[in-house]
Amino acid sequence: MALSDVVRVERNEAGIATVLGILKQRFGDRFQTGQAMRGQHAHTTTYLPTQAPDGVVFPESTAEVQEVVRACAAHRVPVIAFGVGSSLEGHVNAPGGGISLDTSRMNRILAVNAEDLDCTVEPGVTREDLNHHLRDTGLFFPIDPGANATLGGMAATRASGTNAVRYGTMRENVLSLTAVMADGEALTTGGRARKSSAGYDLARLLVGSEGTLGIITSLTLKLQGIPQAISGGVCPFPTLEAASRAVIATIQMGIPVARIELVNALQMRALKNYSKLDYPESPCLFLEFHGSDAGVAEQAETFGMIAEEEGGGPFLWTAVAEERAKLWKARHDAYWASLTLRPGAKGLSTDVCVPISRLAECVAETEADIEEMGLIAPIVGHAGDGNFHTLALMDVDDPREIALVEKFVARLNRRAIAMGGTCTGEHGIGQGKVGFLREELGHGVDVMRAIKQALDPLNILNPGKILPAE
Amino acid sequence: MALSDVVRVERNEAGIATVLGILKQRFGDRFQTGQAMRGQHAHTTTYLPTQAPDGVVFPESTAEVQEVVRACAAHRVPVIAFGVGSSLEGHVNAPGGGISLDTSRMNRILAVNAEDLDCTVEPGVTREDLNHHLRDTGLFFPIDPGANATLGGMAATRASGTNAVRYGTMRENVLSLTAVMADGEALTTGGRARKSSAGYDLARLLVGSEGTLGIITSLTLKLQGIPQAISGGVCPFPTLEAASRAVIATIQMGIPVARIELVNALQMRALKNYSKLDYPESPCLFLEFHGSDAGVAEQAETFGMIAEEEGGGPFLWTAVAEERAKLWKARHDAYWASLTLRPGAKGLSTDVCVPISRLAECVAETEADIEEMGLIAPIVGHAGDGNFHTLALMDVDDPREIALVEKFVARLNRRAIAMGGTCTGEHGIGQGKVGFLREELGHGVDVMRAIKQALDPLNILNPGKILPAE
Repeated sequence: MALSDVVRVERNEAGIATVLGILKQRFGDRFQTGQAMRGQHAHTTTYLPTQAPDGVVFPESTAEVQEVVRACAAHRVPVIAFGVGSSLEGHVNAPGGGISLDTSRMNRILAVNAEDLDCTVEPGVTREDLNHHLRDTGLFFPIDPGANATLGGMAATRASGTNAVRYGTMRENVLSLTAVMADGEALTTGGRARKSSAGYDLARLLVGSEGTLGIITSLTLKLQGIPQAISGGVCPFPTLEAASRAVIATIQMGIPVARIELVNALQMRALKNYSKLDYPESPCLFLEFHGSDAGVAEQAETFGMIAEEEGGGPFLWTAVAEERAKLWKARHDAYWASLTLRPGAKGLSTDVCVPISRLAECVAETEADIEEMGLIAPIVGHAGDGNFHTLALMDVDDPREIALVEKFVARLNRRAIAMGGTCTGEHGIGQGKVGFLREELGHGVDVMRAIKQALDPLNILNPGKILPAE
Repeated sequence: MALSDVVRVERNEAGIATVLGILKQRFGDRFQTGQAMRGQHAHTTTYLPTQAPDGVVFPESTAEVQEVVRACAAHRVPVIAFGVGSSLEGHVNAPGGGISLDTSRMNRILAVNAEDLDCTVEPGVTREDLNHHLRDTGLFFPIDPGANATLGGMAATRASGTNAVRYGTMRENVLSLTAVMADGEALTTGGRARKSSAGYDLARLLVGSEGTLGIITSLTLKLQGIPQAISGGVCPFPTLEAASRAVIATIQMGIPVARIELVNALQMRALKNYSKLDYPESPCLFLEFHGSDAGVAEQAETFGMIAEEEGGGPFLWTAVAEERAKLWKARHDAYWASLTLRPGAKGLSTDVCVPISRLAECVAETEADIEEMGLIAPIVGHAGDGNFHTLALMDVDDPREIALVEKFVARLNRRAIAMGGTCTGEHGIGQGKVGFLREELGHGVDVMRAIKQALDPLNILNPGKILPAE
């Protein structure tokens, strides 16, 4: 995550000027070039320099997205899809300028097929919008990255979150999608069948491609039945290792845990201060179980026994919604609680993912690194997946602090890769992790580049993201 | 599935002659050109004409696969990966001749990581070999396509089977893989992390690519804990519709059914005759539940109530292994039982997949078509996925019968596509369904072709498969 790795994209001034004129004429008020609007559509959730687009267009249909892409293709101008801008690695920056394609007016829920447990939505629908719409159907969409992101953005970054351990990530939950490709053609990757062996898995290729291969204009998503019962609770452990052993035993026993979150001691201290709740200041697991009344009680009791064997506990759990919400609120407040550890600082959120057998070791080494480097950086993890986040608090106006945090993140990425893991479990590459892709995947970068060149030969779709400079 | 759709691939006689010499010298006895050996490595599981390779090589490592591919690339000779040859759509035929690359000597289990519930294997390991190896670990690999296929072949064709409804398909169960690409370079798609957002999902691109983009030389697979308890049973229904409504209710209620198989009345008659068991001759569901002792009993009882509401039952179930095996043996014998419906005939097995809300309608229309066309073709389905198979019995020496069955399969494919489904849920495209890919995916075919051309510009990897003629 060194600034020096950010890929330069040359500005095509003449093309941009032409496209600005075309889009103004075609879209009227739905095309904006004001500075504030452009600034809002650049990347704002990290210390990476803001690189604003030259204009922001608000299409309302696949056909309008095709028009925008065709105009940009004709004049070799970058086009960058934008949801709500909650991505964390500079995904929506415009290093070579160009057009931000804001999907917020493509926010219709096109179909809910309750019998098939699926729905079809436009990309600008947020996950909370969708779940609100579904509230009377007995169904819900489980993927929860924290932010109220758009479903298009979540698919484009292969998002996941706390309950991926039970329900998978966007990779497993997109049945099919429509995307406008770099030549302006619309591609639909399939129908609503639960599975298919019909050729290359184009849906999976586009999920996680961060807008560099196509712009998603509709999505067919799997839904889940709302469980009859939910139980949840919090369990302290004497050490990270003990907590991790409990996670491994839980997964190995096949307990269908819906969420199993690791929170380290520093993060627990922050949560305790912020929420005024009587939490212990040792590593904790936050758990949630979905199932029948008897099932969730059985799961919670079985976990309690596992925790006890590892020296953890007491495991306080409840199936009463209000009490569970209170226990879990602290976990959801982790970001805000963390900021109280250093008032005035901003947090750099980063994530890695390792095999769960290496999780305790990876977290412990990271804690030691944080200590040694003099940083304040609490840790929370989706422990069932081996995925964890650090939030390094820093003064973003101090270049020395930025350099120190970059060094910390680089060491974290390399540590995860060396343990058979990945430099990003769920945030994506964007600009921020471009420098680590080859270390992780070697020749895979060349294969990705060949695909990118085949599908976007003019490099107009979100240039400067994912692929490092040649 | 008309023979006329099979893609022609021109033979490069000079190149083939050169490569035969190179491989003979390099691999000695591990390179075979005898007619019997070549015939065994052509496609033998359907009526499609046998197209034998010119030689069969038995490499023992990724490096040796690289040598073979480099020799073939240098002389523009096709190379076709071969597992055990149990694929059903002509995947291993050699329409332009070339080299069959048999992975049977790459059959080592390289690692089992019990704590992470994963393992790494060479592509020639069969699923039964793997489960035999795992028997003392408490873990198993769940994907079960019926045949004792190799794991490399299963990944290459995106196989699934009876318990995909619970455990997913090969798409969800390959963590990462190594493949030798058309230029001879080895690509490793990632490590052992449960999830990753690091760039394009190359593992998913290769899974299901049928050996046309790369040759898989190792696989890291997810494993599952062997459930504490398994219950299973059989439940008759008055109609297909009633059985399908029971399936939908089961899935909607979130019962984590491990298998839910639909067997139509004709198939039940065949099973009854073959197994001498006292089955009813009406549509049945065969079910299996995995979980705790209490859990599997609860699941079976809940399903029994659902079945009763739909006029089905009695649901006979048991958690006793021997009795369950006896109940289910009939389902596993479906293929052999079907052949008794027309002694001397061969069966053409084909599959489609539709949204489960359309399953009853699709099966009923297919039954009517079978009746109208005078065919004998029992139906079994992985109902929880909306996936079903017909086995059309025919005299493969009678061109009129072949033409009739081709017409039946074409109508079946189009029916499934029109219902928002796919012309293949788990068998793949191969040669047999090449003619339906554009009907199903439209512009998707062009995108697939662009990827194929980018990654295999000389078209040496399993040419003539998946992509229709231009």
